[in-house]
Amino acid sequence: MSLIVQKFGGTSVGDAERIKNVASRIARSCADGNSILVVLSAMSGETDRLLSLAKSIVSDPRGRETDVLLSTGEQVSIALLSMALEELGVPAVSFTGSQVKILTDNIYNKARIEDIDSTRLRATLDDGKVAVVAGFQGVDAEGNITTLGRGGSDTTAVALAAALEADECQIYTDVDGVYTTDPRIVPEARRLSQVTYEEMLEMASLGAKVLQIRAVEFASKYKVKLRVLSSFCDGIGTLITTEENIMEEALISGVTLNRNEAQVMMVGVPDRPGVASSILGPVADANIEVDMIVQNSAADGATDFTFTVSRDDYDLTLKILNEIAETLSAREVRGDRNIVKLSIVGVGMRSHAGIASRMFKALSKENINILMISTSEIKISIVVDQKYSELGVRVLHSEFGLSEASGVK
Amino acid sequence: MSLIVQKFGGTSVGDAERIKNVASRIARSCADGNSILVVLSAMSGETDRLLSLAKSIVSDPRGRETDVLLSTGEQVSIALLSMALEELGVPAVSFTGSQVKILTDNIYNKARIEDIDSTRLRATLDDGKVAVVAGFQGVDAEGNITTLGRGGSDTTAVALAAALEADECQIYTDVDGVYTTDPRIVPEARRLSQVTYEEMLEMASLGAKVLQIRAVEFASKYKVKLRVLSSFCDGIGTLITTEENIMEEALISGVTLNRNEAQVMMVGVPDRPGVASSILGPVADANIEVDMIVQNSAADGATDFTFTVSRDDYDLTLKILNEIAETLSAREVRGDRNIVKLSIVGVGMRSHAGIASRMFKALSKENINILMISTSEIKISIVVDQKYSELGVRVLHSEFGLSEASGVK
Repeated sequence: MSLIVQKFGGTSVGDAERIKNVASRIARSCADGNSILVVLSAMSGETDRLLSLAKSIVSDPRGRETDVLLSTGEQVSIALLSMALEELGVPAVSFTGSQVKILTDNIYNKARIEDIDSTRLRATLDDGKVAVVAGFQGVDAEGNITTLGRGGSDTTAVALAAALEADECQIYTDVDGVYTTDPRIVPEARRLSQVTYEEMLEMASLGAKVLQIRAVEFASKYKVKLRVLSSFCDGIGTLITTEENIMEEALISGVTLNRNEAQVMMVGVPDRPGVASSILGPVADANIEVDMIVQNSAADGATDFTFTVSRDDYDLTLKILNEIAETLSAREVRGDRNIVKLSIVGVGMRSHAGIASRMFKALSKENINILMISTSEIKISIVVDQKYSELGVRVLHSEFGLSEASGVK
Repeated sequence: MSLIVQKFGGTSVGDAERIKNVASRIARSCADGNSILVVLSAMSGETDRLLSLAKSIVSDPRGRETDVLLSTGEQVSIALLSMALEELGVPAVSFTGSQVKILTDNIYNKARIEDIDSTRLRATLDDGKVAVVAGFQGVDAEGNITTLGRGGSDTTAVALAAALEADECQIYTDVDGVYTTDPRIVPEARRLSQVTYEEMLEMASLGAKVLQIRAVEFASKYKVKLRVLSSFCDGIGTLITTEENIMEEALISGVTLNRNEAQVMMVGVPDRPGVASSILGPVADANIEVDMIVQNSAADGATDFTFTVSRDDYDLTLKILNEIAETLSAREVRGDRNIVKLSIVGVGMRSHAGIASRMFKALSKENINILMISTSEIKISIVVDQKYSELGVRVLHSEFGLSEASGVK
């Protein structure tokens, strides 16, 4: 008998009909002889409804009471699903984060899981019952309710799978798996049957919003087999696992596109030690996250310093750079919000030379100018003008043979 | 410094504006130098919203998961009010029933409080903070969430006041106190400044829906001073306390009217031992609650057996009586749903003879025919045709001088 953790997101439990569908799906998994632990998010729209209630009282809801408020969302879901399961004759018991107990630190609104007491859950499962756990929430050492931050339900599911040594952690979403790229851009995009944790992490952080990054990190750390599936149709989805578990390894697993970046540049800065931190220090102090950073080698004793930030932070970043430009004797501050980041990701590139040049050549054939380059062990990212977004994705997807069933070896 | 428990019902916290008003009221109580513990109900409409969600999944929501679901209602209220208090600069900490912990038995949907751990609440109050507790809910010995049944928030407030030995337990509602009778029937009805627990119990069970009966019983048992006040306007409300604490004792404190009764009669039953239980046994087995019971003395070896039930149970009761009439060799089964129950209540009648005859005389002057009579130590109830409802109330209210500021001594 396998122990499977199944996590259903907000749209999967968005109304009574969908909750009943989820219950039927779980009932089938039980009938197949599996032991099932379910993790749920709040019904779609519920968290926003609660937040807007809070905002009608305080301008910026945060801290302890916000977690007391928001944690009710998942509590409603677990009660309703447990009722639906019982109605199908499947015995079920719901658990809040506090009832489990999922021990977290005491950082309200974005707590981190420190420990999970699996006693009661294991007893419930051993009893032949489905355990239905509220995602996204926990309790600190003093018994205060905490939440893990948006999307934290994925993390709850993976953490429970790790604690209970589940055979698999299935994340049900509104897509049927992880794709080689966005199928809206490349209709031939292919669902990956398997992908490594590292690739998934790069893809998640690069804009493939299937899974929460923290959940993938957690899964990777504890070697939890993670599977992304659709809650609306059948299929085997995508398995995210260790490199060793993947039989046929593709050179490149996916092409991602991030439309939410903007580029800023400090031009002609005298090249002396500490200049990078003089520029990035004030930016970090303003809580602006920097993504790609490129510094050109200095030819005439001056250097150009380029980096990307989220588009939301673009104006503020330019303002900060203009403020410090004079102190640094920089020649000019420039910026461009009309850029995108294209990346190719794949653990296979580690052992293959020439992937970068093949990538750049394919783009140049289409006259796509590369504005920035940044590489890691399993990823190459470039910045291009946003007008090339879709074309760039298609060129790379085709160049690395991602549409073919087997991929390029 | 006084410790005051303040309980606010669903309408008092029905929306953001009202929650802010409640916060201001609490802030004033704090500024007056009091230590405040607040008990809240769910926002009005919330419990019904949750129940209708549940009903879209199961036809008759009950049991463990219904309590998990419903308890979120109060949890939302305590979070929002705590935010509103913090916004006013009043430090506040919310507590669910489980966090307190309010230990109950494990009868879901109508649990009874067994014990309250006041440690954390007392520490919060000693810390100069307002403790905001979710009413209506508790936790059983295994950590399962329980609810006390509808209206249970009053009980929570009184139980907390008892556990913490509060100086007063204030119940804020949408009326400004307990009245001598329904002011919609008798405009001169007077707010009582004080009333005994016993009187309040009789009045609550007779249809004055200001307070939950269980809460009054609890207050009586633990001698908690209970005050009913309006959350929408200022005033001292009505204090409910022990007889010893009441200086000037009125003969009659109030006149109540219950429009929800129906009368049924088994006529001409042979008068032999056990006939009452033969009639009431099957009625009780059908979970029908019987209120007044009258058996006339038998003249010709046969007796008439009359009782009242809730109007909702009228048809079912008649059906049951017809079924057993033949077995009992009864002559006839009769019934009347167009009756009402009028009662006068007052601890003063204990030591005064002649109250009953004065009551009947006043009614007969208006040609109001009395159909049934039932008396207790501090109450006399009669059944009359429902067309005399308002007239009966007015006659009795006037007869016992309830409109006058001091009452009749």
